This record gives sequence, structure tokens and C-alpha cells, in this order.
Amino acid sequence: MRVLIAPDSFKESMSAREAAEAIARGVRAVVPGAACTLAPVSDGGEGFTASLGAALGATLHSVTVSDALGRPVGAEHALAPGAQPSTAVLEMASAAGLMHLQSGERDPMRASTRGVGELISSALDRLGEGGRLIIGIGGSATNDGGVGMLGALGARFLDSDGRPLPPVPASLAGRLARIDVSGLDPRLFEVSIEVACDVTNPLLGTSGASAIFGPQKGADRATVAKLEGFLGELVEAAEASDPSLDARAHATDPGAGAAGGLGWALATFLDARFEPGFDLVARTVGLEQVIENADLVFTGEGAIDAQTLYGKAPAGVAALARRHGVSCVVFAGRIGEGAEVLYAHGVSALVPIVQGVTTLEEALNDGPRNLERAAATSMRLMEIGNIAVHSHRAE
Amino acid sequence: MRVLIAPDSFKESMSAREAAEAIARGVRAVVPGAACTLAPVSDGGEGFTASLGAALGATLHSVTVSDALGRPVGAEHALAPGAQPSTAVLEMASAAGLMHLQSGERDPMRASTRGVGELISSALDRLGEGGRLIIGIGGSATNDGGVGMLGALGARFLDSDGRPLPPVPASLAGRLARIDVSGLDPRLFEVSIEVACDVTNPLLGTSGASAIFGPQKGADRATVAKLEGFLGELVEAAEASDPSLDARAHATDPGAGAAGGLGWALATFLDARFEPGFDLVARTVGLEQVIENADLVFTGEGAIDAQTLYGKAPAGVAALARRHGVSCVVFAGRIGEGAEVLYAHGVSALVPIVQGVTTLEEALNDGPRNLERAAATSMRLMEIGNIAVHSHRAE
Repeated sequence: MRVLIAPDSFKESMSAREAAEAIARGVRAVVPGAACTLAPVSDGGEGFTASLGAALGATLHSVTVSDALGRPVGAEHALAPGAQPSTAVLEMASAAGLMHLQSGERDPMRASTRGVGELISSALDRLGEGGRLIIGIGGSATNDGGVGMLGALGARFLDSDGRPLPPVPASLAGRLARIDVSGLDPRLFEVSIEVACDVTNPLLGTSGASAIFGPQKGADRATVAKLEGFLGELVEAAEASDPSLDARAHATDPGAGAAGGLGWALATFLDARFEPGFDLVARTVGLEQVIENADLVFTGEGAIDAQTLYGKAPAGVAALARRHGVSCVVFAGRIGEGAEVLYAHGVSALVPIVQGVTTLEEALNDGPRNLERAAATSMRLMEIGNIAVHSHRAE
Repeated sequence: MRVLIAPDSFKESMSAREAAEAIARGVRAVVPGAACTLAPVSDGGEGFTASLGAALGATLHSVTVSDALGRPVGAEHALAPGAQPSTAVLEMASAAGLMHLQSGERDPMRASTRGVGELISSALDRLGEGGRLIIGIGGSATNDGGVGMLGALGARFLDSDGRPLPPVPASLAGRLARIDVSGLDPRLFEVSIEVACDVTNPLLGTSGASAIFGPQKGADRATVAKLEGFLGELVEAAEASDPSLDARAHATDPGAGAAGGLGWALATFLDARFEPGFDLVARTVGLEQVIENADLVFTGEGAIDAQTLYGKAPAGVAALARRHGVSCVVFAGRIGEGAEVLYAHGVSALVPIVQGVTTLEEALNDGPRNLERAAATSMRLMEIGNIAVHSHRAE
């Protein structure tokens, strides 16, 4: 029996790889001969670098970069020089993420993606020509249209007199006239850039970056209007500076509004290709080919509910399993309200892993053991099913 | 698919019948055509009357009887006039149980089984000749060798001058000479009496009633010695009064020491037949015949652990299932340490029913819903097993 084991992480309890190993132990305890393929997955959320990096056999490299307010912060990129092509993975939020800010510090007129540029630069130091750079975006504290990142990578933002301006919204708004990209790091154009992105918002307008994501980054009504104005000027300046960039067209790309407009900058200036996080991970690790050849698929995540359907890894795994007619079992620490909707989307069984009344702390500590037991019990039930159905058919 | 559903109660959450119904809902949600047979079971512990009564289609009758200290207490017997033969069920603990006493009230020299006799008498009022009386024993507050019960049913306890003595150890010890059974209710000999009993202790000695169970009923070392002496005198008085009773021989019967020697009295004076609680229930409801014809068996209990093996209903169901080569799934609110030992004794899968981190109160409230979901998930996994195994075999 060929079993594909492709869980996401069980947050605060197990990494995706640890979860996959726990499931494999449970499977083998009941079916020692089972051929288990471990393919930990991720959906572009927290842990994307570690999870995708691990799947690629990458090494994690620590780098000190700027956070959204310019303070030093430890970030990392994963490098898999042996992948085909050699691949680096990083997350924008590890540099310019909202998670690094106290709630009183949110200031989207000053917050910058400069650290993202620094992190990309450090990855380019190791990646080499023909490589592939994968960037997870989401969870940003910024609304700067990616100007911080572009500045860190060598672009210059000029006023109408040709004088350089600091690349933050507060300095550029009402003054930006032209963007000089001649100084952009040439290594950027020797690699392909892929962006894992789970939102489809455009850059501007009522469903754009400022209107939708501005408030959670600290923008009040007036600031949202300023940010919207700034991003509009940014697009016009880019269009005026080099019409071949298609800056205006890219502003309407799905995902251009992701991470405060960083999506737009990546698409416009760095020719990045966008893909939903799970799809990118699945493609990178060749998940579909493994699923196609499996008799059974296990996936899982810390919590499963009706929202799981929208871009979460277990739903993605289940959809691929369904496409190939393979049964898919989902394990979860918590099965929340409405999770049953997944039964209509490729999930064959939703299995809770706790073994009785327990506190959250105990459940997190016991996660690996509980998951192993749940996997073993599931295999036992499958074996019973086979026996019971046969005894029934033999009537 | 023929599914036998034979759970015990999930204490404080669901009766055995409610548990069986929840499992059936879960099964039918996934396999609408499943033929479910509901056979709630019990092992002679708390809820024995209600559970076995329900299985027999009995009516519960409330009676006021004496508790171990002579105070009025509400008890009940279950009567199934339509059973073959017509059957009454009662529990000794509902009258003379430790549960009715405050801990400071424990007094085994004065505690009496009189209420058990009253409860039996009330059952005989309704049962009629040729009937069957089933008595669950265990959980008693008494160490009276059944003299209270016998007294309530018409026996007299006499001193060497032929004067009647009150039937409690404190009054009989050192004075009892003879037992007059001529006044015993004649209806007792027109019915068969069966006792559900899970202990095998003899009446006397180091593994007897006083030594083993006396302390938990409030006896200190000196009182245990007095009680042991009293029970020895009781046996000799019975032997002297009527050698045909085989009083001495019955003192060594397995179970003679149950319920403070009530077991001995039932065997010696009322010709009761003893059987482990689960076996008696299983035989009464014809469980083995149903299991034999099932494709699959579900059972369960509130908590399952290594102790479940010793006389608990789920272990009994699993043993019967194994005898007939039928897979047996056990549901539990809590799967405790060492429960895996059951896998060597006929259990095919141990399935916890909670769906995530939860408090005890929530778990008890959500019991029926959680059990239904666990049953549905188990059926889904069995269906997967069938598919996966087939796809594997088709390679």
C-alpha cells in the first residue's frame, strides 16, 4: 500500500515534517509494509520558508535585515543549491511583517519593505544565475507599493527636479515624479521570481491594498486616502518613467494589492509570476505526481473548519487527491464548526487527534503522540472496512 | 451491512441506549442502508437495572425501601412481564449502597441489607410464579452476611434460648444460635434468582468479605475482626439449623463474599445462581446470537483503559466478537493509559470521540453529538479502507 503523507504544520505543536513523521509512525505500526512518502506542505502562511525549504532539502541561512520601521531583525532564507533549478525561498513577513510591531507602532506612511529587498539581496548572493527565487507574501506591516524593497535593490525615486527622495510613502507622496531603475541589481534579471500569494486584490480602488488592508496596518480613514493617492502616483511615475514596464496594467493584476502593493512592484519591476501558495508548493515538491501513484493520502493541520476550503493546504491536498480518485484523510487538533463542508471537496474523512478531555497545553505537548495514535487508529478502521465489506459481500 | 451496536453507558453523559442511538445515527449518515441492531449493554455496575431493563423492554417501578441505616430511600426495580420468562431486575446498591451514606455515617456493624429484602419483596409482588429475578450486587455499605435481607423476607435469627434477635451484626455477634427459615416468603421459591456479580471473593478469610471490603465500608482493624467472627458464627448457625442448606460449602463459593456476604445468603438460602455481570446481560439480551450474524460490532464506554479488560462491558463485547471473527470498534470519551492491551483481546480499533480541546463539562454535554460524529468518521474510514485496499490489489 502506497501512502502519501502531506500535512501542513500543527501550529505551536509540530512542524509539517514532524507531523508527517508522526503519521508515518502510526501507519507503519498497523501496516508495517506500507510504503510511506512524506511530503510536508504549506499554503504560503507562517512557516512557508521552513516547510518548503525542508521539502526541497534546503539549508536555512540567517540574515539580519531591517524591519518595517528600520530596526534590525533576524530573518532567514532557505537555499537548495541542488534543486533543479537551484532555489531560494523567503517570506516577506520575516522582514517587514506586522508580527514584528507592537500595536501602537503601526504606521503605514512610514513602514517600509526595505528589509524584503535586503533579504532578496542576501538570497541572490548565494543563488547564482538561472536560479529560482520563491517569495511568500502576506502578513505585511507596509503599504509602500514595494518602494522600500526596490530602493534596497538599487532603484531611485526622484522628484521633478531629479533629486532623490527617501523611498517611503510619507516622503514620496505628492513629490514623486520619476523612477530610475538603471541601478537595480542585475542579478535580479538572471533568476526567475515566483510569488506565493493567496489574495487576488488589485493595487488600487475599493478592493485595493489601501482600502482593504490599510486599516489593519494602522491607517485611519484619512491615511487610507493618502496611501491610495500615493500608490496612484507611484503607478503613474512608473508608467511615465518606462512605458514598457506596463505599470498601469500590472496595477489590475490579481495580487497586485498583496502586501501593501509589494505584489505590484514584484510583478512590474521584477517580472515575478504569481501563484496561490499551496499550488506553488505542490508544484515545487511535485505533489500531484506522488498523489497520482498513491493508494491513500493523509493530510492535516492544527485546526480545520469551514475556512479551510479557502486556500489552506489540507483543502489543496484533498482537491488533488479527488482529481486522481484517491481517498484523502484529514487529521486535525480541532475540528471546528462547518468542517463537514470539506466532504464535498475531496476529503474522505476528518479525524480529530485528541484522545480525551485535555487542556490546550497538554494537547499541544501531546500532538505528535496523539497524531501517531490517530493515524494508527485510522489504519485499523480501514483494515476493518476491508474485512467487513468482504464478509458482507460474501453473504 | 449488518451492524451490531452494543455500548455501555457513557457515565454522566449518555445512557447505554442513548449511546447506541448516537452511534446508529452516525452509521446511517454514512451508510444509509446499514441494518443497525441496537443492544445497549451493562456490566452489573451503576445503571444495571435501567440498562438491562431497557434491553428487556421493562417498565421501571419506584419503591421506597430502607437504606443501609434504616432511613427511607427511593429505589426501583424493572419489570418485563412479557419476557420469557417474565423478568424483574434490581440492584442491591439502590437500597443498601454506599452511595446513600455520608462518609462519616459508615458503620458496618449496624448497616443492614434489609432494604434489599424489601426491594425483592416488591418485585415478587409483580413477578408471579415461574418468573426470573435478576439482582445486581456490588457497591454495598453492608457487611451483614445478608441477614437484613433474610429478615425482611421472613427469616428469624434466634439466640440459644430461642428468642429472636435484630438482624444486624451488632446484635447477632456472640449471640446467634439458630436461624428459622420457615417464615421465608414462599414466592422466593417459585422464581429463579440470578445474581450479576463481578467479584469472586469467598465469604471468610484473608480474601473474604470483611478483610477485603470491610475497610472501605468504615471498618477499622478491630471491627474487621469482629465482622469476620460474626460471619463465621452465621455460617455455623445456618449449618446447624439446616445441614441441607450447605451453608459451609457455600461460604467458599466464588462471590459468596460479594456485597458484605449478601452473596453467600443469596446462594445458601435462595438458591441463587451467580454469573459475571456482563455475561448475564449478554445472555439475557441474546447478544452472542446477534454478534454471530453481524458484519461489524460497535461498543464503547465513557472511559477505556487497561482496567477495561477486567469485567467491563466493552471487553466482554469484544471477546464475543472475536469468538465469531467479527471486527469490534470501541468508542470512548477518554482513551487512558494502557488501553492498547485491548488490541490483543478482540478490539479492532479504539476510537476517541472528542473533536478537539474541550473541558469535561463540554465533553459530557456534547457526548451524543461527538459519538455520532466519531461513528460517522469511523464508517468513512472503513469505506476508504475498502477502496484503498482494492485499488492496491488492482495494481
